[in-house]
Amino acid sequence: MSGTGKTKQDSATLLLLAAVGLALITILTVWKLKQLKYRLINETGGAMFFGMLLGLTVRCMLFGWGEQMDDMETVCICGGPNNTPHSVTVNNTSNFHRIRHVGKVSQRCPSVSTPHTETFDPEVLFNLFLPPIIFHGAYTLNQKRFILNLGSVFTFAFLGTIINCIIVGACVYGFTRLMVLLGRAADGDFFLTDCLLFGAMVSATDPVAVLGLLSELRVDLDLHTLLFGESVLNDAGAIVLTHAITTYSQMGAEPNFDPPAFLLSVGYFLGVLAGSFLLGFTFTVTTALLTKFTRLRENPLLETSVFFLLSWSSFLAAKASGLSGIVAVLFCGLSQARYTIHNLSSEGRCRTKQLFEVLNFLGEIFIFSYMGYVLLMFPHHVFKALFITGAFLSIFISRACSIYPLSFLLNLGRTTKIPRTFQHFMMFAGFRGAVAFSLVRRDTSTEVGRTIFSTTLLLVGFTTWVLGTAADPMLRRLNIRVGVEADDDTEDLSVEARLHSLIPTTLLSLLPSTFPSALFHLCICPDLHAVKGTWSGQLPGFMRPEGQQRGR
Amino acid sequence: MSGTGKTKQDSATLLLLAAVGLALITILTVWKLKQLKYRLINETGGAMFFGMLLGLTVRCMLFGWGEQMDDMETVCICGGPNNTPHSVTVNNTSNFHRIRHVGKVSQRCPSVSTPHTETFDPEVLFNLFLPPIIFHGAYTLNQKRFILNLGSVFTFAFLGTIINCIIVGACVYGFTRLMVLLGRAADGDFFLTDCLLFGAMVSATDPVAVLGLLSELRVDLDLHTLLFGESVLNDAGAIVLTHAITTYSQMGAEPNFDPPAFLLSVGYFLGVLAGSFLLGFTFTVTTALLTKFTRLRENPLLETSVFFLLSWSSFLAAKASGLSGIVAVLFCGLSQARYTIHNLSSEGRCRTKQLFEVLNFLGEIFIFSYMGYVLLMFPHHVFKALFITGAFLSIFISRACSIYPLSFLLNLGRTTKIPRTFQHFMMFAGFRGAVAFSLVRRDTSTEVGRTIFSTTLLLVGFTTWVLGTAADPMLRRLNIRVGVEADDDTEDLSVEARLHSLIPTTLLSLLPSTFPSALFHLCICPDLHAVKGTWSGQLPGFMRPEGQQRGR
Repeated sequence: MSGTGKTKQDSATLLLLAAVGLALITILTVWKLKQLKYRLINETGGAMFFGMLLGLTVRCMLFGWGEQMDDMETVCICGGPNNTPHSVTVNNTSNFHRIRHVGKVSQRCPSVSTPHTETFDPEVLFNLFLPPIIFHGAYTLNQKRFILNLGSVFTFAFLGTIINCIIVGACVYGFTRLMVLLGRAADGDFFLTDCLLFGAMVSATDPVAVLGLLSELRVDLDLHTLLFGESVLNDAGAIVLTHAITTYSQMGAEPNFDPPAFLLSVGYFLGVLAGSFLLGFTFTVTTALLTKFTRLRENPLLETSVFFLLSWSSFLAAKASGLSGIVAVLFCGLSQARYTIHNLSSEGRCRTKQLFEVLNFLGEIFIFSYMGYVLLMFPHHVFKALFITGAFLSIFISRACSIYPLSFLLNLGRTTKIPRTFQHFMMFAGFRGAVAFSLVRRDTSTEVGRTIFSTTLLLVGFTTWVLGTAADPMLRRLNIRVGVEADDDTEDLSVEARLHSLIPTTLLSLLPSTFPSALFHLCICPDLHAVKGTWSGQLPGFMRPEGQQRGR
Repeated sequence: MSGTGKTKQDSATLLLLAAVGLALITILTVWKLKQLKYRLINETGGAMFFGMLLGLTVRCMLFGWGEQMDDMETVCICGGPNNTPHSVTVNNTSNFHRIRHVGKVSQRCPSVSTPHTETFDPEVLFNLFLPPIIFHGAYTLNQKRFILNLGSVFTFAFLGTIINCIIVGACVYGFTRLMVLLGRAADGDFFLTDCLLFGAMVSATDPVAVLGLLSELRVDLDLHTLLFGESVLNDAGAIVLTHAITTYSQMGAEPNFDPPAFLLSVGYFLGVLAGSFLLGFTFTVTTALLTKFTRLRENPLLETSVFFLLSWSSFLAAKASGLSGIVAVLFCGLSQARYTIHNLSSEGRCRTKQLFEVLNFLGEIFIFSYMGYVLLMFPHHVFKALFITGAFLSIFISRACSIYPLSFLLNLGRTTKIPRTFQHFMMFAGFRGAVAFSLVRRDTSTEVGRTIFSTTLLLVGFTTWVLGTAADPMLRRLNIRVGVEADDDTEDLSVEARLHSLIPTTLLSLLPSTFPSALFHLCICPDLHAVKGTWSGQLPGFMRPEGQQRGR
């Protein structure tokens, strides 16, 4: 085999081996620590720690500490080959050398380059592991609780994200003005849109980190649903908001408020959200129809494979068509759990759940290890003390400004109020993680981009370690139930039966004609309730009134 | 996001989407055809067919048909940057452009370049999917039958591979001489070592294709074990033989026989085989010790993850240390099934089996689709009619020369003879596939390399489609049992009990001290037989006499 090819292959193998080794060390260490009753450390924190250790080791081995970092070959991938020949052929002795144009070298564009730039594209990590993580979260969400808390979850997720984005943006913008006053930054370094962009990127709490903690501690189910539902859905909000602000600022309307650009970006926000939702739902409908009208369930292996591939496709198709992959796979997971799951054989149900569970678990570890690794290996960190202070302060202020007022408003309408203790814990559990990282890493070509990148990594590290570690004592201090078992079907059915008994028979006879969606539900979902024609069976999950959802 | 990065990301997403789409179409079509009683087509053949369709479509869309193929940008990755500057900086207008050296351009080195060269490295495919496929094959091999047929399997696998390699090499060399005589090739185009290398590369039957067929038809279990055991182990033989011949020819001893180089390559063959075996076994011992001496089994998710990561590591570690990854993961699978499986919780056993089953199934489809795709997209195919004729003839001749004489020899010593019908079917079932492809694709820099590459792809296509399709009628014609269920434990235990009763108690009391391995077995495997101290429990699987193996 040729030299370059072989070297490239070898480093790819070494890289994979390092990743697998890291994952193994993380799993075993965290598990052993938990056995020794150090319940404070979870897999995400452990993975990030070991990733940092690896980064430190590689950095020390390759460059000593610090000063030589800039000498490494940075392959700049920003700036497309616009007016530059795509390849240059140089006549050197007897051989021709083809030299490929890689990109412009400028002060503004040292990209996320580590010695592995050529062999490893983090996009692979996010294409492979983020979809199963998000899907698994949505797929295993307790549907009954989710529907019961639907309004609150949506409020926290979408209104909360917008509040967070604005407050973080404003707060950080204040600090950047202070930096200008103190002479730590030039006047044109940070625009308001940059700060809002940062606000959007870090506004979402991370489902991976939140899930790691919640499933470990098994907190009260309503709190679990509120926190996890919020963290899953606000990713959608944050991603689309980020795109919208990028669209706005790319329209050259940076310094002053530009109403048409603003409207366009709001339209974009809504369009992407609706498009991604529809796309995710389309894949669910395809899966549901396939599993209902064919005898695929006779072969659980095929069933699982088709289910897995179609769910993953929702992410890829959304990305390929310029929509949000995460939002699509999220809605796909939610609706698969509502419709398709009833068409699967019992073995198929078990297999799909276990498959996504393993992928979720390993993906979580790989992504957090990678974040830890990049935190120490990224050669162009820009740490600005005031910006970092502003960011840390603002995420707490913004979370307080979203959780308490929104809870107060929601409690006005809820029958089961959100207790004060839950609010305190929700305020506290604002972990940032994989999604924020995947958003900020996309543009590290500018000083601002790099400042945001480095600050976000610090935020992720801080919330994962410090807040993650303090969560268990915090729960005890707040006297919140832990070690709660998941709902079983009995309780669930009794809720359904109870509500069913409340509905007059005359109303039941009217409903099918009133709700065209009932027909749709009958078409794609064969569960008994639907066939029997009870009210609860005839409405798609999202349209049913609170309390009527069949849990899993 | 930067332009180049975004384009690269987009095409990566599109590529993944295409792969997932192909897999879905393959699964559904083949399944539907099977339902309609077209049992002749299997997943591997279907995947290759759809891969070719995709290749054809892309080719037509991108270049029309044929003539413009050479104009596409081929990024040549062969030939390392020896005396060439690693990067060149060109001052163009106000920006500096960094241009990276990619490789030498010469007539001899247009590598496997498709428009996706930059976004997709097939190494990823083989690093990700080949290990689970091989592992799954070894892990689910019926251990009892395997031990019963151990001698025969090893004979067919290793002696058979060497016979195949020599006969194919000699036969094809004869045809290349004919090509020289007819003026179709120059005298120095094909050396004997090239032909032997080709022989080694295509000598191995493919476990993926064989398994696809066998598990579909559920043939007689002894025939299954012989064919599958052979196909799994002869990969090891073929890979190591290929390396050995490469080593031999790289020592510059091409034209004449060179005893020291030959001895060295034989030594290399044995060294790599032993090293890979030991490495695979080391990972098994680690897993077995971990699962025995810790309480990992209390958490099936962790158990499965650790088991999966350690098994995969055996492949990566072997590759990283210059050994054969496939051989290591193969022995790892065999020994995990012998030792570690008894330490897993019942849920863990089920999960690991199902996880590898899905990965195997999808991996098989992805790899065969890719082969089909490359068959039409590779821009530098070299089809030489005489070489191809020689190759097709020689694989039949060599298979006949290995199966019949070896069966005759083996039958002299076997209690249950290999029937004539089995021999005919084994002779027939010489499918070539993923392993042969993974070996030939490594060097397509020379005319010879490309001739071998193209010919092998044709061989793979022919054996997968023609032989694969004819297998079912062939079995019926030969009157071989199909639709056989796997052995159950009852029969199995009775075999063990039957043999156990034959062993005098006095012999039993002597055995532990006679066999130090008994202690080892007691250490890593907790199954009851071992704890009770019966003879069958005290010996590691491979050392037990025939018929005493506990099946799964």
